[in-house]
Amino acid sequence: MADETLDGFLEALASAAPAPGGGAAAAVQVALGAALVSMVTNLTIGKPRYAEHEPVMLAARAEADRLRGEALALADADAVAFTAVTDAYRLPKETAEEKAARSAAIQRALVGAADVPLRTAAAAAEVVGLCQRILDGANVNVLSDVAVAAASARAALDSAAINVRVNLASMSDAATRDATAAELDKYLSSVTGADVVMRAVGDRIGS
Amino acid sequence: MADETLDGFLEALASAAPAPGGGAAAAVQVALGAALVSMVTNLTIGKPRYAEHEPVMLAARAEADRLRGEALALADADAVAFTAVTDAYRLPKETAEEKAARSAAIQRALVGAADVPLRTAAAAAEVVGLCQRILDGANVNVLSDVAVAAASARAALDSAAINVRVNLASMSDAATRDATAAELDKYLSSVTGADVVMRAVGDRIGS
Repeated sequence: MADETLDGFLEALASAAPAPGGGAAAAVQVALGAALVSMVTNLTIGKPRYAEHEPVMLAARAEADRLRGEALALADADAVAFTAVTDAYRLPKETAEEKAARSAAIQRALVGAADVPLRTAAAAAEVVGLCQRILDGANVNVLSDVAVAAASARAALDSAAINVRVNLASMSDAATRDATAAELDKYLSSVTGADVVMRAVGDRIGS
Repeated sequence: MADETLDGFLEALASAAPAPGGGAAAAVQVALGAALVSMVTNLTIGKPRYAEHEPVMLAARAEADRLRGEALALADADAVAFTAVTDAYRLPKETAEEKAARSAAIQRALVGAADVPLRTAAAAAEVVGLCQRILDGANVNVLSDVAVAAASARAALDSAAINVRVNLASMSDAATRDATAAELDKYLSSVTGADVVMRAVGDRIGS
């Protein structure tokens, strides 16, 4: 999807085609947040006034650049995983054997389909962590962009959570379901972190 | 920006170039939300099971398609308005006359720069309204996408709010400042609406 035009991607998102959908949108929300973290670091690195924060900014930039690439890969992975689920539902279900094979295929595909938004939530939580790390030392002229990055990562967390849960709802293996839900909850604790970043920026720009 | 590749847009966002920045990111968040509303309506329209909701879906699709185009235009408008502010700050300030002209130019540019995120917030509030309208009659297979649309619109509201406020902080005309802040507050009441949509979807998918 990275090579599509922004307009073309949004057109495909808007269409009745089964993918891209909400999973790809969540991944793009992560990518937007990661890109803004990179921008803030790029506008802070090399400025004498922020020299003491340079090591933090350099490390954050490397992480953010990596997460942006990862997010775009997740947008593609989501389409693949989603197609696997719809393909599995289309398997024949005439005989008892076919029914069993179809059920097993659906369950396998659902695990894959829940894994992509889970990794999207993990990446979004990392973006929130980067926002927290760069907040104090960021160039004040682009402080608002740290808040926008946090808002975007927060949307990705909310989006990925619903995408994981919709897959969990059809998953029959309780152990996988519980483990996935527990891992998701861990990432979702970053929602609070994102809100703290947005509030801190709001306080500092003073209105 | 609509004709840039997704990767190219994100690369430009991540770079040290002054634009695109958080304003364009907020506009893209609106576009993501609007595109997902369109997708949900496209996957609901024409299905006998949802026939009674067809008029709502048709109207929502037309609105969502329009808002997606508007959002992309706002991403471009933000870059133009932002450049006008940085250009104004670069005006000469040697003589008293130059100082006065520069101050006036900065204030004019700030009004323009606050207007773009204000319109972004307005568009985001409209996307939230569409999510609320399609929630009951949406194809249950894409109900999670209504929540992702709401999450994206909510991020756009949070982002646009910070972008408006950062411009208000430098604005000297109290009347314009107060009027802008009041208009922004009106749109921000949709944050609650977005949260209600996300919670309702979460309850219906049942986990």
